[in-house]
Amino acid sequence: MSALTASSDPDSVHTIFEAGDVRLQSGATLPDARLAYKTLGRLNNTRSNAVVLTTPFGAQHTDIEWMVGPGRAIDPQRYFVVLMNLFGNGLSSSPSDAGSAHVGEDWPGCTIADNVRVQERLLREVFGIEQIELACGFSMGGIQAYHWAALFPDRVRRFAAICGAARCSAHNHVFLEGVKAALTAGMQVENGRMAGAERGLRAVGRIFAGWAVSQAFYREELWRSLGCASVERYITDVWEANFLRRDARNLLAQIWTWQHADISDNDLYRKDLDHALGDIRAQGLIMPSESDLYVHTEDCRREAERVPGARFRPIPSKWGHRAGARGPGTHEDRFIEQGLRELLAS
Amino acid sequence: MSALTASSDPDSVHTIFEAGDVRLQSGATLPDARLAYKTLGRLNNTRSNAVVLTTPFGAQHTDIEWMVGPGRAIDPQRYFVVLMNLFGNGLSSSPSDAGSAHVGEDWPGCTIADNVRVQERLLREVFGIEQIELACGFSMGGIQAYHWAALFPDRVRRFAAICGAARCSAHNHVFLEGVKAALTAGMQVENGRMAGAERGLRAVGRIFAGWAVSQAFYREELWRSLGCASVERYITDVWEANFLRRDARNLLAQIWTWQHADISDNDLYRKDLDHALGDIRAQGLIMPSESDLYVHTEDCRREAERVPGARFRPIPSKWGHRAGARGPGTHEDRFIEQGLRELLAS
Repeated sequence: MSALTASSDPDSVHTIFEAGDVRLQSGATLPDARLAYKTLGRLNNTRSNAVVLTTPFGAQHTDIEWMVGPGRAIDPQRYFVVLMNLFGNGLSSSPSDAGSAHVGEDWPGCTIADNVRVQERLLREVFGIEQIELACGFSMGGIQAYHWAALFPDRVRRFAAICGAARCSAHNHVFLEGVKAALTAGMQVENGRMAGAERGLRAVGRIFAGWAVSQAFYREELWRSLGCASVERYITDVWEANFLRRDARNLLAQIWTWQHADISDNDLYRKDLDHALGDIRAQGLIMPSESDLYVHTEDCRREAERVPGARFRPIPSKWGHRAGARGPGTHEDRFIEQGLRELLAS
Repeated sequence: MSALTASSDPDSVHTIFEAGDVRLQSGATLPDARLAYKTLGRLNNTRSNAVVLTTPFGAQHTDIEWMVGPGRAIDPQRYFVVLMNLFGNGLSSSPSDAGSAHVGEDWPGCTIADNVRVQERLLREVFGIEQIELACGFSMGGIQAYHWAALFPDRVRRFAAICGAARCSAHNHVFLEGVKAALTAGMQVENGRMAGAERGLRAVGRIFAGWAVSQAFYREELWRSLGCASVERYITDVWEANFLRRDARNLLAQIWTWQHADISDNDLYRKDLDHALGDIRAQGLIMPSESDLYVHTEDCRREAERVPGARFRPIPSKWGHRAGARGPGTHEDRFIEQGLRELLAS
């Protein structure tokens, strides 16, 4: 049967970086912040072979682990890979945490910059890593990679944004407004707990089924390649199932993070996007999908043009946003791997 | 302030065609079927100047009346225009009807073919019209125009499908699955009545705000041209307000109709789309919007190529699906008007 991720080991062991009380961009504090991460490969003696791999929306490190492997561009025999879990994703600090001081609507908004700054602390404080070889991610993971490059311009040698942008575009924001409204339409607080989320989670799955691929994907019935017997089975078995695994409060937290993403919305760049993009010194690889409906190629192109060392390589695909995470054996993956190899060789 | 329709007179008087018990394609019966219509202009002596104008999703004839006017292509001084309300739109028979035998989930699915066949009866039985000059509509209205041409090939001289297709594409179907899931996520039956629809209606508005325009629409902040002060105001004042006017049960009925739309899914063509398209003898004008995200230009092009007398004229626009209904004074309207004038002169 089909799934969103090429291979996913739910038992994949992670470690917690206890970051303490973290002052957020909003001014609020995330108390006892916990960043869940997993490492693959070995840190070399000069601490110069670190690769940061970041999670997309609704995902955990187990969903991106397949991107790393012997013989792949991000090869653990060569690199020390740190898989980072986004705040709100259920493994790092999240609204769903039992005993958390922050549940549901109390959850303080964590920006991508908040996340990346704690990720940077983890590398420095735990591993003594000052310089990274590559920051890479798909979708919201790509947004994090962009932030790494903009927030730490002298410490990131390369970054790769796969179906990821420097900020959440206005259209992407509106798309997420629909997701959020559908998710919360059936939710209510009962006895101090959130209830009624299941129908909302299914609705989110159905909405993503329309946005996350492309018109041509359905025109050509490409869902058949996933072993689905019908469009309806594709929607239920892939998309509904994907979101039913998740906690609605955590998805809302991540939507907030996504909607507020902007590499220039911080003290360093004060909403001057040109400045933020222009300050990036890392070699960049910007890889939108040609058929992506919400991380639009044109937005990515305009951003990439303003990054001094960026290559712009749209992925030829009818898989829309999903082109960036189809997994091994697909032509999209080979295209991305080729891009990453060239980037890492540069 | 802005609204979805260029001008809308909620008091515009309509007439009811009592169609009796209508046997539907599904085998079910729509009892005491009522088709609400309004006429503009005068039927000539030879009964040869009739134009049928059909309603899109979530709309009533008051929302399309602006398409007719002195000096416009569809000029009531020349044509006898009949504005037809779709079953389920709140004016023709609908789940919301007080005293209806069919409310909410009992509502029998009415196909586009069911609608068009009753529309044809109205013209024949009330006005003695056997031949129509033009069937025209936007969005689901365009689907109805296509059906007119396919179901009555020897009685329709011309048809125009503005952002409308010969059938609901698979991707369009999936988009509507998201809308439906969001609409129903918060709904429940309380004391035999549907409750909790408001949040769902707002969610539908937010979802449409993402789908019904285009990425470029938001990139270039074209909502400002509607007098909106922000994206959020655009979403609430235009999209939420539009759907809050409507009954959720009626929208569900119309979604069913839309999802099942297919000019070939009937006794005449037995799901042979090539046959249905090839049988059309009317001069056709197929006008998708270049940036439409759910009635995709490519689907429309493939259909138009199989209609013997069709002109394919995509509307150059960044307004996505809304390009087909922007209203007087816009370049999209001028483009459509030009197409209709040429069609009517042919």
